[in-house]
Amino acid sequence: MNDLARLRDALRAFAAARDWERFHAPKNLAMALSVEAAELLEVFQWMSEADSRNLEPAAREAASQEIADVLLYLIRLCDALGVDPVAAADRKMVANAEKYPVDKARGTSRKYTEL
Amino acid sequence: MNDLARLRDALRAFAAARDWERFHAPKNLAMALSVEAAELLEVFQWMSEADSRNLEPAAREAASQEIADVLLYLIRLCDALGVDPVAAADRKMVANAEKYPVDKARGTSRKYTEL
Amino acid sequence: MNDLARLRDALRAFAAARDWERFHAPKNLAMALSVEAAELLEVFQWMSEADSRNLEPAAREAASQEIADVLLYLIRLCDALGVDPVAAADRKMVANAEKYPVDKARGTSRKYTEL
Amino acid sequence: MNDLARLRDALRAFAAARDWERFHAPKNLAMALSVEAAELLEVFQWMSEADSRNLEPAAREAASQEIADVLLYLIRLCDALGVDPVAAADRKMVANAEKYPVDKARGTSRKYTEL
Repeated sequence: MNDLARLRDALRAFAAARDWERFHAPKNLAMALSVEAAELLEVFQWMSEADSRNLEPAAREAASQEIADVLLYLIRLCDALGVDPVAAADRKMVANAEKYPVDKARGTSRKYTEL
Repeated sequence: MNDLARLRDALRAFAAARDWERFHAPKNLAMALSVEAAELLEVFQWMSEADSRNLEPAAREAASQEIADVLLYLIRLCDALGVDPVAAADRKMVANAEKYPVDKARGTSRKYTEL
Repeated sequence: MNDLARLRDALRAFAAARDWERFHAPKNLAMALSVEAAELLEVFQWMSEADSRNLEPAAREAASQEIADVLLYLIRLCDALGVDPVAAADRKMVANAEKYPVDKARGTSRKYTEL
Repeated sequence: MNDLARLRDALRAFAAARDWERFHAPKNLAMALSVEAAELLEVFQWMSEADSRNLEPAAREAASQEIADVLLYLIRLCDALGVDPVAAADRKMVANAEKYPVDKARGTSRKYTEL
């Protein structure tokens, strides 16, 4: 079994043992994911871009913990919705390649609607 | 190679081909991840919890696309920071089991600091 | 002087006394605002909509503190950008009235692009 | 009547005319506020801090519109919760002055827990 399926099953068991399925509506899981993404953002909020490329160990560990929370809620939300995150990401990569052709997107951060 | 490593390499090549590494400071990637998490949240903002458990096809597809964006930026951020997301999630599962013991956490949504 | 101008001046003095202008680039203030908005969201994440309409005192106080943080960063960001938030809100109210005419928007939470 | 009270009343009438009170549970309004804060964040996500201090007109207008959305949802949420945002901000300013004394906080972006 791959890593994401293993984590999905572990989260399922974790929630079932605590009778938490009642709280885990997709609406609530999307909120929790957004909160964790903001906690990850907080690590970087007063940091320069250059410093963010060379994190001190404490900041790297803090980021790592928030990354874990984001991933866990993402997997749990996918399970609740019956969405395969890797298949969705694969489809998105194809779409992104069409929206951002190399010759137009090279070296610019503009949105595809403005290329 | 597993799925996450495959996506990481695809994202690396995608960014390199477009000369986007200069934009992909962890600070900026954390912002982008937070923006995508909010776009996922938007799918659910006026929906009842009950309806979020039974998404209509259009909403499910919209959620699926935003999930893909969150996952892709998460993988890209992990690559930029040198963090292994699955190892971080495994450590977090252990920590969560300690913070939320079954007998105290069963049936309640209280934070571990208030159990 | 009105309340928002008074708070703007107080924030300006607060930042100047601490030599914080260097951190208060609009990019960083927008991040801080987003983090505070997520802390506000956290108050409600496992709560039913019905319960959110009747907050217990501790949750109401927690929400109130995060509301303050959001407002303070919003004012500070407006000052940094030279944007008048009330004038912007007045313009938005006019635009919203056009995007959501009463006869089309009544009783539905659909986005204006789908009315 | 001051600006915020005027906007509060305008939003109340706007929602009542469209029968939107049913959607405006504080939980949902906090989600909407968080989504708008992220749309504001998006304006800055690939921009350098230096560029964010000197926005081009289109970006400044985009930021201004998202600022309006954040302020409007904040006012609407305060109305739903019975919270006075200015009084809450005034209390927070006092608390922040205690948490961040000038002599300890000068020139550093560290959190008060680490001063």
